[in-house]
Amino acid sequence: MKKYVIGIDVGGTNVRLGLVGPAGNVAARLSFSTQNFSATPEKLTTAICEAAGALLRQERVPRTRLAGAGIGLPGLVDVNKGIVRILPNIPGWKDVPLGKTMEKSLGMPVRVENDVNMITLGESKFGAGKGFRDMICMTLGTGVGAGLVLNGEIYRGPGFAAGEIGHVPLNEEGPECGCGGWGCFERYVGHQQLQKAAAGFFGKPEISLEQVYHKAVEGKKKALKFWDMVGEKVGNGLVGPVNILNPEAVIIGGGVSRSFVFLEPAIVRTLRRRAMRTQAEMVRIIKAQLDDDAGIIGARVLLQS
Amino acid sequence: MKKYVIGIDVGGTNVRLGLVGPAGNVAARLSFSTQNFSATPEKLTTAICEAAGALLRQERVPRTRLAGAGIGLPGLVDVNKGIVRILPNIPGWKDVPLGKTMEKSLGMPVRVENDVNMITLGESKFGAGKGFRDMICMTLGTGVGAGLVLNGEIYRGPGFAAGEIGHVPLNEEGPECGCGGWGCFERYVGHQQLQKAAAGFFGKPEISLEQVYHKAVEGKKKALKFWDMVGEKVGNGLVGPVNILNPEAVIIGGGVSRSFVFLEPAIVRTLRRRAMRTQAEMVRIIKAQLDDDAGIIGARVLLQS
Repeated sequence: MKKYVIGIDVGGTNVRLGLVGPAGNVAARLSFSTQNFSATPEKLTTAICEAAGALLRQERVPRTRLAGAGIGLPGLVDVNKGIVRILPNIPGWKDVPLGKTMEKSLGMPVRVENDVNMITLGESKFGAGKGFRDMICMTLGTGVGAGLVLNGEIYRGPGFAAGEIGHVPLNEEGPECGCGGWGCFERYVGHQQLQKAAAGFFGKPEISLEQVYHKAVEGKKKALKFWDMVGEKVGNGLVGPVNILNPEAVIIGGGVSRSFVFLEPAIVRTLRRRAMRTQAEMVRIIKAQLDDDAGIIGARVLLQS
Repeated sequence: MKKYVIGIDVGGTNVRLGLVGPAGNVAARLSFSTQNFSATPEKLTTAICEAAGALLRQERVPRTRLAGAGIGLPGLVDVNKGIVRILPNIPGWKDVPLGKTMEKSLGMPVRVENDVNMITLGESKFGAGKGFRDMICMTLGTGVGAGLVLNGEIYRGPGFAAGEIGHVPLNEEGPECGCGGWGCFERYVGHQQLQKAAAGFFGKPEISLEQVYHKAVEGKKKALKFWDMVGEKVGNGLVGPVNILNPEAVIIGGGVSRSFVFLEPAIVRTLRRRAMRTQAEMVRIIKAQLDDDAGIIGARVLLQS
C-alpha cells in the first residue's frame, strides 16, 4: 500500500503544510502565519505539530497510511541528525533538535532539510527537473539560493551548506553582502536590489516588480528592456556555476521567476556568449513547475530516499 | 593476485608512462617528447602504445599481471565511450576513438580520461585528498583547472566538462579569455599572467616565477609580498566555488603550487574574509602530494572503479 507524507515548508512569512500522495500530488493544504508563533523555536514547533495533526484529522488519514513528515526550513540544517543549526531570519533557532522533537510529538519518522534543497528534491522528481541527472535548481527571490543534483543525487556538502549560488562573487569590488562577503550575485539580483533598480530605471520610487511584470506582459518596451537587463545579470551570475558544474539544466523558481519568459532570452544569450562552449550548448534554462508546492512535494522524495 | 596498471599522462610537452602497483606506487617510468609524434593522432597513439610495450618488456611484467591501462589527455574526453572529443593544444584530435584503438593494440582494457580528472583521482585515493568525500583538486599552471570529488565520487558532468574553475568569472568586465568568455579566474592567475605581473611588480621584464620563488625562500620581502598578492587572487577565485560546493578541501597542484607555502596564508585569509562562514571554517587548503606522478597514479583508481 502506497503511503502519504506530510510536507512542511517553513518560510519567513508563512508555514505551509500539505498532504502529499504517492504520485507527488498535494491532496490537501493548510497554512498559518509564521510571525504569530515565531517567538521561540518551541512555540513554532508546537504550532507546526498541531497543524499537522489538524491536517490529518481534517483529511481523515489514519496513521498507518503515513510514511512520515518532511520539513524544510530557511537555514542551515544537519540533515543526518535532524538538527536545525541556524535560521538567519527566524530568531532563536540555534542547534535545535527539531527532528527528534517532532518525531516524539507526531509519532512518525520526520526528516529535516534546508528549504531550497526541499524545493530541489520536489522539482527534480515531480517538476521541471524530471529526468535530469545533473542540475541546478535556483530560487530567485528575496534571497538567491540553489539546490544541486549531481550524479543523480542531491549534493549537500559536508557542512550541509552547498548550493550558495547567490554568494558567488560577480566582481572583485562590489557591494557588501549580509553573508560577510562582497560583490555577491544576490546583491545584484535579489528582490530588494531589483526593486531599487526598477525605481531608478523607471524614475518612479514606488514602482513594484509586479507592476513591471504587468507592463512587460502588455508589451511595454521599457519594461521588456528592464527584464532583459535583469536576465543578463542572471546570466552573468550563472556563467561560473555552469562552467564548474556543466549541468544539463538550470531550473529557475522563486518570486522573480514569474517574469521568467522575459528573462530567459537574455539568460541564454549571456550564457552562449560567456560560458564555455560545451557547457553553454548543453544547459537548458527552465522555469520551475511546482511553484509554492515544491517544498511540500520535496518531502515525498526525502522520505522515499 | 593484485595487478599492475599502466598509467599514461599526455601533456603538451611530454607523454609520461608509469607502471603503477596495487598501492599506488610507481614501479617504473618512461617518457618521451609529445612534439616528436604530435603530427597526427595516429602517430601519437602508435608512439604511446610502443612506449607502453617497451615499459612492460623492460620491467618483464607478464600480461596476466596487468589490469589494463589508463590514459589522461588535456582536453574533452567522453569517458564512457573512450573517445577524445577535442584537445585544444594538440592539433588534429577531434572525436578520436582512442580507447578502442589502444585496446586493440595493447590487448588489454584501456580507460580514457581528462588529465585533470586523472590527477584528481590520483590525489583523492593516494595523495593529499585521501579521506575527503567532497573536494576540489585544482591545478595552477599555464591553465587553471580542477577535478571535483563530490559525495565520494568524481563528478564529470553530463558533457564531461565539469570542473572548469579557471573559467569562473571574477569580474563582470575583464580581460578576454581563450574560452570565449572574459574576466575568467585563469586570466588573473595563469602562469603567463603571473609572469607578466611579476615583470611589472619587480620592474624586470626577464624575471621568472622560479626566481621569484627562490627570492621568497630567501625571505626577500618584495617576493613574499608578490606571492601574498597572488594568494589573494587565488583566494578571490575560490570564494565562488567554495560557497557553491562547501568542500572539505581544496587541493592545489600544478607548476605555480611550488610556491604553495607562500600562497597559502593569503588564500586562507581571503576565504575567511569573503566566503560564507560554514564554508570558510570547513575548507582546508592543501598542497597536492603526488606532483608529476598524480596523473599516472590516477589510472590505478580509474581501472579499479
